Amino acid sequence: MASTPRSRLNYENINPHVKAAKYAVRGELAVKSEEYRAKLARGDTDLPFKQVVSANIGNPQELDQKPITFFRQVLSLLENPKLLEHEDVLLNQLGYKSDVLARAKWLLSKVGSVGAYSASNGVPAIRQAVADFLERRDGFPANQADIYMSGGASAGVNTLLHIICADEKSGILVPIPQYPLYTASLAVLNATCVPYFLDESKNWGTDLTAIKEAYEKAKSEGVDVRAIVIINPGNPTGASLSEEDIRAVLDFARAENLVVMADEVYQTNVFVGEFHSFKRVLRQLQQEQPGAFDGVELASLHSVSKGMVGECGHRGGYFELVNFDPQVQAEIYKFVSITLCAPVIGQCLVELMVNPPREGDPSHELYAREYDGIYNGLKGRATALHRAFAQMEGVECGEPQGSMYLFPTIHVPAKAAEAAAKEGRKADEFYCLRLLEATGVCLVPGSGFGQKENALHFRTTFLPPGTEWVDRIVGFHKEFMDKYR
Amino acid sequence: MASTPRSRLNYENINPHVKAAKYAVRGELAVKSEEYRAKLARGDTDLPFKQVVSANIGNPQELDQKPITFFRQVLSLLENPKLLEHEDVLLNQLGYKSDVLARAKWLLSKVGSVGAYSASNGVPAIRQAVADFLERRDGFPANQADIYMSGGASAGVNTLLHIICADEKSGILVPIPQYPLYTASLAVLNATCVPYFLDESKNWGTDLTAIKEAYEKAKSEGVDVRAIVIINPGNPTGASLSEEDIRAVLDFARAENLVVMADEVYQTNVFVGEFHSFKRVLRQLQQEQPGAFDGVELASLHSVSKGMVGECGHRGGYFELVNFDPQVQAEIYKFVSITLCAPVIGQCLVELMVNPPREGDPSHELYAREYDGIYNGLKGRATALHRAFAQMEGVECGEPQGSMYLFPTIHVPAKAAEAAAKEGRKADEFYCLRLLEATGVCLVPGSGFGQKENALHFRTTFLPPGTEWVDRIVGFHKEFMDKYR
Repeated sequence: MASTPRSRLNYENINPHVKAAKYAVRGELAVKSEEYRAKLARGDTDLPFKQVVSANIGNPQELDQKPITFFRQVLSLLENPKLLEHEDVLLNQLGYKSDVLARAKWLLSKVGSVGAYSASNGVPAIRQAVADFLERRDGFPANQADIYMSGGASAGVNTLLHIICADEKSGILVPIPQYPLYTASLAVLNATCVPYFLDESKNWGTDLTAIKEAYEKAKSEGVDVRAIVIINPGNPTGASLSEEDIRAVLDFARAENLVVMADEVYQTNVFVGEFHSFKRVLRQLQQEQPGAFDGVELASLHSVSKGMVGECGHRGGYFELVNFDPQVQAEIYKFVSITLCAPVIGQCLVELMVNPPREGDPSHELYAREYDGIYNGLKGRATALHRAFAQMEGVECGEPQGSMYLFPTIHVPAKAAEAAAKEGRKADEFYCLRLLEATGVCLVPGSGFGQKENALHFRTTFLPPGTEWVDRIVGFHKEFMDKYR
Repeated sequence: MASTPRSRLNYENINPHVKAAKYAVRGELAVKSEEYRAKLARGDTDLPFKQVVSANIGNPQELDQKPITFFRQVLSLLENPKLLEHEDVLLNQLGYKSDVLARAKWLLSKVGSVGAYSASNGVPAIRQAVADFLERRDGFPANQADIYMSGGASAGVNTLLHIICADEKSGILVPIPQYPLYTASLAVLNATCVPYFLDESKNWGTDLTAIKEAYEKAKSEGVDVRAIVIINPGNPTGASLSEEDIRAVLDFARAENLVVMADEVYQTNVFVGEFHSFKRVLRQLQQEQPGAFDGVELASLHSVSKGMVGECGHRGGYFELVNFDPQVQAEIYKFVSITLCAPVIGQCLVELMVNPPREGDPSHELYAREYDGIYNGLKGRATALHRAFAQMEGVECGEPQGSMYLFPTIHVPAKAAEAAAKEGRKADEFYCLRLLEATGVCLVPGSGFGQKENALHFRTTFLPPGTEWVDRIVGFHKEFMDKYR
């Protein structure tokens, strides 16, 4: 065999389900933007912009968001507990408060070393802290045995979908537009995604008629629909659901015997109204209609990645199970055992997130100032961006409600659609690619999340600081419209 | 519908492939040992022991192993970069050396915030550091584009098996006994495990005859055998492969066109001879026989969890691909994108592991002292344990060579096997369960890793400090043998 044989693994013979998965958030445009960034870093000057703006991904600390001091001070002590031998220096010279030291000591007493594996489902004391937080948040009991720590919410979604989906007939109702983690994971698992459209005319709220239609259609095609995914506040839409919407979804899940997966990672990113957790609403329905909702299984997910915490690089998160069968929970425990445990320092960060300094604690004032500063900064930038979109020809965008994204509709001239088709691209991809090439601003085309035919969108975070990048979008848009008019 | 409906998800209808997965390392015995630990913590005194000894899992820092100071000092600065505003205090009052500060600044300049997502395949500068390390270790070039950072080696194995296995006919040669991550992951993926037995008579080395037999048998049954897994140094066996064994495996992989997956997480835990990396041996074969080995695809894995680092709770690791098809690599990149990125602080720890203080650096002396202390401690405990086993009736155990485990054979009396059968247990499970109940020492029965029929083993780490727990095993064993003789 003198000639090199064809690779054992090639595009034709690897796992077809991995190939089928799509993940545009980190796809072609993101890769291209990184190439531009590297070019600029090398000092190349032939690009028409001086800076790449990553508005494609909800990565707060890559952009303007600073970590919260209390959290990071505690983590520094967990990483180097020998610092605790110098309390005087910490307190008097380095600006650590006594509650920082106390918390680090408490966590170390529960965790041992952050370099050791924890129990597969997480450190017991941290699961208890999460349960206590859920009780405070919802006004209903929570049990630490039903909490599972995960490496970000993504790992939790992966676990839950692995358990729920038995074969290719297993179907999961997924909102469209959606964060592509769901469709990608279902593709890898070779299970069936049952898409239901959100209602753009109602600020991307849930539309029960659309959900029922999608469900009935899938059922008639032989799909064994097992669960419904809700992302609230929404990604990419930014929607924030009303309690009424949540009740309607839970009632539908009860009637059709569906598991509810509530992705609530943006629960503190709410600008209009307030966040309603699926857990609280479910427990309330159980009180109001005794017996009727006792069979509704709910999994709700949260993480340290978003909100005012914004610590996505730490890969911390959890999910809570409600009304799950104990034998199913045992299989979930075994499944998470195979990958050993979630990062322990990320687990500690979850504890800090759910149990931050309280009023009167020495670190509270700074914590509250930092927290409010981040919240108001996000809200202000969301509003500024929304205002800019309102001035752009052919762009429509609802008022910012929650999460970290705006998801405007764009109407492009017919000539632009033709030019896109000539390149073999969808019109929204074409638009975002030209924008990136002209301005260095990286967005995600709506087709990466799913959208109705002939409706075009893009998703932008409102994380990048300042408004100069928004001006770049406005300027590009005008030229684009003029060119293809 | 007044009565509570049967749970939507129950043991009968969830994913059968998850149910089929077995993971004894954290199974029944481990759960029971945690219950005992909780009982003791509550102050209960009705157990016949005062302490639970977790010799079932390679979790160094849960036991005697201390983290290495240099690593943790750098991590503390990455978590709280504001400490770098107090260089004087760090250097003069807290024992930080200047190379600690320099490294933290360098990592921060490359990573930004450890709270931000990195590129999906890892921080470019850290991948470059890994490539540089591999060049130094092997004497052959390595390319950062072929390095993928992962959340421990387990996540890397999960990624690779997802790509390699296309359907249930895809087969992977897996050593028996093996670390159950491989069989469990293949079960979840519904691919075919093709077991090959290691040769206990040659200190658990690879036996090419056994590999070929297993391969031919699987092929004749229609299995599309695609890859061979090697764990070197071995888990659970502790074997350390000779260069000759590795050459033989690579030659077999070349002849049969198989991908090689080399799990090398114990590469620094070697007590006899030296570690030979598959990468170096492959590159050497390529030099010696130009052209012949150019098609051999190799994936090798490493992590921060084992060795003298022992930081498994941080979930840091990487894998390197050699000779992989670029289109396949693109799919691997997409797959890891779906879970966003490995924990960034764990990535930084990988950088520290592959690039520790060098001779002449201010932190080198302490680093070398700590590193050697851990190495010698492990070696000493391995030897003591081996000596104890040598004195036990019906126990045979090869000399400790590498990794963190001994895997002795136990011969139990026929009556013990009968008593086990009455409980519906395998004899080794029965033995380990009685040991746990009597002494609080938790081992893993050999059946959790696979073994030949009628050969019984258990795996024990040699991580727990002291020898008192070894005496407990010796005492129990004598009573057990007497009882069932």
